[in-house]
Amino acid sequence: MIVVLRHGCAPSSVMQVTERLQELGYEVRPIIGVEKTVVAAVGGDEHRNVDIVEQFRSYQDVEDVILITRSYKYTALETHPERTKIDLGDGVVVGGREVVMMAGPCTVESEEQTFCTADVVARAGATVLRGGAFKPSTSPYSFQGLGVEGLRILRAAADQYGLKVVTEVMDPRKVEIVSEYADVLQVGTRNMQNYDLLKEVGLSRRAILLKRGMSAKYEELLLAAEYIATAGNERVMLCERGIRTFETYTRNTLDIGAVPVLKSLSHLPVVVDPSQGTGRRDLVEPLSLAAVAAGADALIIEVHPNPDQAIKDGPQSLTFDGFNQMVPRIARVADAVGRPMGTPAGT
Amino acid sequence: MIVVLRHGCAPSSVMQVTERLQELGYEVRPIIGVEKTVVAAVGGDEHRNVDIVEQFRSYQDVEDVILITRSYKYTALETHPERTKIDLGDGVVVGGREVVMMAGPCTVESEEQTFCTADVVARAGATVLRGGAFKPSTSPYSFQGLGVEGLRILRAAADQYGLKVVTEVMDPRKVEIVSEYADVLQVGTRNMQNYDLLKEVGLSRRAILLKRGMSAKYEELLLAAEYIATAGNERVMLCERGIRTFETYTRNTLDIGAVPVLKSLSHLPVVVDPSQGTGRRDLVEPLSLAAVAAGADALIIEVHPNPDQAIKDGPQSLTFDGFNQMVPRIARVADAVGRPMGTPAGT
Amino acid sequence: MIVVLRHGCAPSSVMQVTERLQELGYEVRPIIGVEKTVVAAVGGDEHRNVDIVEQFRSYQDVEDVILITRSYKYTALETHPERTKIDLGDGVVVGGREVVMMAGPCTVESEEQTFCTADVVARAGATVLRGGAFKPSTSPYSFQGLGVEGLRILRAAADQYGLKVVTEVMDPRKVEIVSEYADVLQVGTRNMQNYDLLKEVGLSRRAILLKRGMSAKYEELLLAAEYIATAGNERVMLCERGIRTFETYTRNTLDIGAVPVLKSLSHLPVVVDPSQGTGRRDLVEPLSLAAVAAGADALIIEVHPNPDQAIKDGPQSLTFDGFNQMVPRIARVADAVGRPMGTPAGT
Amino acid sequence: MIVVLRHGCAPSSVMQVTERLQELGYEVRPIIGVEKTVVAAVGGDEHRNVDIVEQFRSYQDVEDVILITRSYKYTALETHPERTKIDLGDGVVVGGREVVMMAGPCTVESEEQTFCTADVVARAGATVLRGGAFKPSTSPYSFQGLGVEGLRILRAAADQYGLKVVTEVMDPRKVEIVSEYADVLQVGTRNMQNYDLLKEVGLSRRAILLKRGMSAKYEELLLAAEYIATAGNERVMLCERGIRTFETYTRNTLDIGAVPVLKSLSHLPVVVDPSQGTGRRDLVEPLSLAAVAAGADALIIEVHPNPDQAIKDGPQSLTFDGFNQMVPRIARVADAVGRPMGTPAGT
Repeated sequence: MIVVLRHGCAPSSVMQVTERLQELGYEVRPIIGVEKTVVAAVGGDEHRNVDIVEQFRSYQDVEDVILITRSYKYTALETHPERTKIDLGDGVVVGGREVVMMAGPCTVESEEQTFCTADVVARAGATVLRGGAFKPSTSPYSFQGLGVEGLRILRAAADQYGLKVVTEVMDPRKVEIVSEYADVLQVGTRNMQNYDLLKEVGLSRRAILLKRGMSAKYEELLLAAEYIATAGNERVMLCERGIRTFETYTRNTLDIGAVPVLKSLSHLPVVVDPSQGTGRRDLVEPLSLAAVAAGADALIIEVHPNPDQAIKDGPQSLTFDGFNQMVPRIARVADAVGRPMGTPAGT
Repeated sequence: MIVVLRHGCAPSSVMQVTERLQELGYEVRPIIGVEKTVVAAVGGDEHRNVDIVEQFRSYQDVEDVILITRSYKYTALETHPERTKIDLGDGVVVGGREVVMMAGPCTVESEEQTFCTADVVARAGATVLRGGAFKPSTSPYSFQGLGVEGLRILRAAADQYGLKVVTEVMDPRKVEIVSEYADVLQVGTRNMQNYDLLKEVGLSRRAILLKRGMSAKYEELLLAAEYIATAGNERVMLCERGIRTFETYTRNTLDIGAVPVLKSLSHLPVVVDPSQGTGRRDLVEPLSLAAVAAGADALIIEVHPNPDQAIKDGPQSLTFDGFNQMVPRIARVADAVGRPMGTPAGT
Repeated sequence: MIVVLRHGCAPSSVMQVTERLQELGYEVRPIIGVEKTVVAAVGGDEHRNVDIVEQFRSYQDVEDVILITRSYKYTALETHPERTKIDLGDGVVVGGREVVMMAGPCTVESEEQTFCTADVVARAGATVLRGGAFKPSTSPYSFQGLGVEGLRILRAAADQYGLKVVTEVMDPRKVEIVSEYADVLQVGTRNMQNYDLLKEVGLSRRAILLKRGMSAKYEELLLAAEYIATAGNERVMLCERGIRTFETYTRNTLDIGAVPVLKSLSHLPVVVDPSQGTGRRDLVEPLSLAAVAAGADALIIEVHPNPDQAIKDGPQSLTFDGFNQMVPRIARVADAVGRPMGTPAGT
Repeated sequence: MIVVLRHGCAPSSVMQVTERLQELGYEVRPIIGVEKTVVAAVGGDEHRNVDIVEQFRSYQDVEDVILITRSYKYTALETHPERTKIDLGDGVVVGGREVVMMAGPCTVESEEQTFCTADVVARAGATVLRGGAFKPSTSPYSFQGLGVEGLRILRAAADQYGLKVVTEVMDPRKVEIVSEYADVLQVGTRNMQNYDLLKEVGLSRRAILLKRGMSAKYEELLLAAEYIATAGNERVMLCERGIRTFETYTRNTLDIGAVPVLKSLSHLPVVVDPSQGTGRRDLVEPLSLAAVAAGADALIIEVHPNPDQAIKDGPQSLTFDGFNQMVPRIARVADAVGRPMGTPAGT
């Protein structure tokens, strides 16, 4: 930690900072300059002292406090240099050499819609079925999902076609019921900092797909993962799904750079959602290719038998034909970067 | 609603859009131009058709869909032209002529800290005591609040000095217990789109202070309020607390323009939080003055007996002296815009 | 300057950094910790070493380089603690005790329009006439201004009613001609980092109104001012005119917090433009009041005799009635913060 | 164009809008609804009426004006469905089937540095040499470039190794001299809306590399290109180079989605700059791969013989080894998407 004191600060201010840092177990060096005085401290446990560290900002004559170590620990590559592979069973591993394809409808609408989608995506090469049973919607007048009935349909469709299930949980009171049906619990972008939910899924035995908040910095995403990890569940996948910027042509700006950045900071696998990330069907393919080229471990894609009758997110859902045409193109780019696509489910 | 079809669209596409709109009860006029074809529709109930409206974006040849009515209804000034006054009892009314001052520590740390702060802010003119018992923290290693013990202290201090209580609730399972102690339930910025929490506080009899999400548009804030209102609770205050921008000098960028905008769109009262909004003590006073000048109905300010020992948010907390000096300055600006400050509590 | 080296760095890396810093005249202290090694350096002239400092980021094992002194010097309050007052003659001083009102049409359209607007704003209390002769327009099909003829009209109208003139210059080749007609040269938001223009106006004898770039940080605005100052012209006013954020309801988000921040970092006067800053007439008054409450030294406001026939920016232009009603309200808030409005021109 | 009038508007307001639109040559349909009245108009020439269209926003009772045609014309794919190929001579074509590699130092520092870099990048497969002679720098204390001497070195090095030259021009007074040495004139991110510069390069015979402004929307970038095109020069390449967001870990957020979006809106070729776009050497390769996978026509990369002695941008410059290792990986991804890399220069 570096504490910067303002020009002309009182010697007592330097003393106060120095003594407090020593109490906290830091090795301390004050350096008194003409313009500024700097107190440099090493050796303390900054991620555990986060609140105390903040206090320095309030001290007399303190101008800035700069942390020089990571604020997260379990999720840091520095402290855990081996990459985490999340084994979902039956050979589906996220974070290994193969790129994993997760696909399915935005929302579970009916048995028929879900089963026929599961069939198509499984044949094309997906190994995980996505689909919403509890839906977060900006408007209260919007469809809120089929709930438990949706979970039942999703599980049945996945089992029929040899797929794993990922679905969102929004309410800490529902973690248990969703865990009965899903292999992967999704924490959505609006809930990335819903700490009671993070703690609750941290107690679950299911893998977690943690979506980046709409305006979350990389560090905040990693700290959200840290909440889950410190609660006891280290099987977390980080998911880039587009951030909010000034650009209005797309729903969000998909930050492909998040893939190499997160993989350089953390050992956790990184998933990319180009459907939510752009909100436009025509951008799903080019950004899927880009995500895989940049090193993504998995993609999660919205597919619907008839997008113009989809209850939600039709404009960004691929048709069956669109998905079938896209997958081999992704496979070619995956090969080019030495990351083959997983073998289609059931083969 | 306006549906724009692309250059050279098929007549069948126009027909499909037209018929679907008529089914939904709209009066429809297709206008076929050289460059674009436009189907204009009026008379339908757009806020209730939000999902169906979205489907049009997926139709063959549809380029854009433009909504022309508000997506929210209960919270709209258009449909409820009388301004909402939220009466907290004992003459404390948010949304009336008087500007209300809410103040107190970021976090309830102890009886002593809370009682002495309550005493000071009440004397200075505050009528509502703020303080965190359940704290949302970016890091899991950060203090998470005293919990129910914090609620108890807060209530006791408020009662002692004739103040009302506002405090945050983060977990839908805690709404009941927090409601026992608080007059106003705060929904924090990270939970603005935690829909299960919104629905739960919508069932409560307490007034709600709804903070704008860090990257929430005005419409999204109003739709979050609409969730609470449609669940049965129309006593909602909207709170501007700074948005996330590219600027890093301040923690957030306080959007003072939100005050007149929200008051032009909605009948709900508007509160401003310059402490969270800037993260810097020296900016609290100028931005409090600005907020009141722009028409804010209330301010919510962090005050601490000893900011450099505050567990949290010391850098943005005012000292007792700072608060005491600021209030009369705010009162002068409030007078200048015809909105006097409320009489100090207990006088 | 603080140089942070990564965990487990080679001793030679620490040596390389240390020696280079010593060559540059810094006093250096390396502190080798368990997790990180930090080299703290004080005493060098960082704002002049900006490029060399950057080089450290490329050194072997360097993780971060943190500057601890200001990157600007002439414009810093630290190095120039007396506030700059810009005297435009005839008692018009920007940065003194009085709040200065600048007003006029977005664009000079005709003699009649400009003269009648000048008459109205002068009577209401403005002392500076604004108006565009060279107009920056996002579209090439948009009106580009009357050019020199516009300058001539503006000067004549200002002289007739005892006003000073502020108008934009976009092209370094036009600085001379614009200086013949204007008292204040405006550098627009799109040109805040047009360095050849900054250098050219730095050679001029006219005062400069430097508008913040749409996505410029405070530090970048101050460095742009520094370009002008180092070229020889220290009579610079900083102007907040709204930044680009994710919110689309207003054209820009007016950052009222910029007023106290800039005044804490710099001795230069701060002007606020609520017309450009919001793009909406109904927000001009509340945000003018807010700007003055927060400490602005001047306002710059668009006024038009007939906004719905304005060539540009009608939606944000005040009518004469609107302006006449607003000024006394601003004067009341200005009084409340101890900053009276200037006496109307010609009285 | 759609004009939306507010609830309960006067019939005279509808009449006023209708008549004005008819005068402008639009076919008009007013539709009077219960909640809103909408006037839909087709057939007019919106991109030429941009100012007049704006006026409607000021009309009595008008709530919104929605444009439904493109605001740009020359640069629109709709009006020019054949993709533009920019032939720089000697087989170097940007916008054809092959991906073009542009590479070189951030800044021309010396003959030796430039020649050896040109040699290496040419052998590796680059066909265009980049390098700055006139440098835009945030700080006035930063190196401003070698100027004309830099241009001379750049041209000589390019000629020696069979490369084309791209370099930035910032000042309209310098367009002529830069054109003597360069094949492609770069307009930098800070000057994307420097309209006098755009008009000046529009008169040049050189191809233009137009960089997206730090906070420019796609439409604004295309309108900037439109300025150049309407001045007479249609040989414009659009360059994505990172946008400004809330994330601070990278210098900018590279918007890979810009590639497919711009190619769907315009016929102009799209170039990506991952060096400026991220500011971090370790991200250049993954984002180069992503850009090519997403359909970029060219890359522009910073390479330096010794990045830790680079005058500027060392942290984002590749070493010779780094560049040599990256190019074949890019070539593999380029092959996977059916866009081979150009043949190395001189072979």
